[in-house]
Amino acid sequence: MIGVLGGMGPLATVDFFAKVVAATDAQDDAGHVPLLIHSDPRIPGRPAALLQGGPSPLPALMAARDRLIAAGAQGLVMACNTAHFWHAQLCEGCALPFPSIVDTACAQALQTFGRGARIGLVATRATLATHLFEAALQARGLTLVAPSNAALDDWILPAIALVKAGQPRQAGPLLVQAIRAMQADGADGIVLACTEAPLALQDAPQALQDLCVDSTTALAQATVALWQQLQAARPA
Amino acid sequence: MIGVLGGMGPLATVDFFAKVVAATDAQDDAGHVPLLIHSDPRIPGRPAALLQGGPSPLPALMAARDRLIAAGAQGLVMACNTAHFWHAQLCEGCALPFPSIVDTACAQALQTFGRGARIGLVATRATLATHLFEAALQARGLTLVAPSNAALDDWILPAIALVKAGQPRQAGPLLVQAIRAMQADGADGIVLACTEAPLALQDAPQALQDLCVDSTTALAQATVALWQQLQAARPA
Repeated sequence: MIGVLGGMGPLATVDFFAKVVAATDAQDDAGHVPLLIHSDPRIPGRPAALLQGGPSPLPALMAARDRLIAAGAQGLVMACNTAHFWHAQLCEGCALPFPSIVDTACAQALQTFGRGARIGLVATRATLATHLFEAALQARGLTLVAPSNAALDDWILPAIALVKAGQPRQAGPLLVQAIRAMQADGADGIVLACTEAPLALQDAPQALQDLCVDSTTALAQATVALWQQLQAARPA
Repeated sequence: MIGVLGGMGPLATVDFFAKVVAATDAQDDAGHVPLLIHSDPRIPGRPAALLQGGPSPLPALMAARDRLIAAGAQGLVMACNTAHFWHAQLCEGCALPFPSIVDTACAQALQTFGRGARIGLVATRATLATHLFEAALQARGLTLVAPSNAALDDWILPAIALVKAGQPRQAGPLLVQAIRAMQADGADGIVLACTEAPLALQDAPQALQDLCVDSTTALAQATVALWQQLQAARPA
């Protein structure tokens, strides 16, 4: 069973769950990945903690992690990009495999756009402030094209808030503008480094969707692969 | 936190999770219902257990229930109609509120179609064999219009298998035929008493969807109501 730290936000966790099911090549129930999904929307806000000195989500994340481990999880994933600021601390003293959404998304960006590509990021200001994606892109020979402050204020952050308020379709046109602006700034490809973003882009033109690596899909595929590895490693 | 017994099948549990989020009137993450979703597709098949003497899912369901309780669940729901054959046994020795999908769906059918209505059922042969819905409908002054054996074999069961194999859209036309046949047999309304059914009917005409009470939506609404009750009952 794979434990999922979720609820940041709930609709993004629904999307992650759907993408794990879709990424599984199964003909019936039994071929699917067993999941224990901790969808706790009460986890303190990640951007407020990182940017405004709000309460840290780490204690709640640690409690969720330990609850999943105690319930029998054999691996862990966390369906929120910003929360990966605390990923290293969550991995401390944890013997379970716990792939990072940052690493899986950036690995997929390298595969999709090739070494040397310039990568625009759809992310919260808090995720950008952590520099996690910047470092993971650089480590793979990719260059970050960050959204401007105006793009964050006018398009990206309002779009994320709309998804969290249950209005993903209204959020789409805002994100499209943010992506077009990063293309104009030289981005060869885009990483959707916020789990709300793919929900907003469901109705976007296919050509624009093809420009985007979705961190939720990348993590879902890594989750299926992790489960298959755990199954293969079982003693006969 | 509400514990969810799921994975029967996984896509139906995704649908249930999405419907809980949709049924919640929330403006941000924090307004949503905390869920712990046990999506275990390895739970032995319910129809095989009920109709063919296959292994009982009860031990696996009991283990999942106890895992959710140990992890801190304050209420339980189970996102599978057929599995409700074991609902009474799962409630034994369990102090948590555990609303039944059968009761919530039939209550909504009464509200929608009125006393005396004749209700067609989209359900597995196993669910029909349990007579759970028949009893719950009768208790509310509603009459069951069961699908014929041919409708089960040609339309309903193949449609459910298609959803479980990840092909919900191909399943739709089959269920539409089954529903039309029950209307021809006198049904005033339909209860989708299988959590795979609403996934198949996403593209069906609105007039046909309006004829249907969806047991997944009914349970999702009951889940939100249960969480609100639990919050209201907290000592100040």
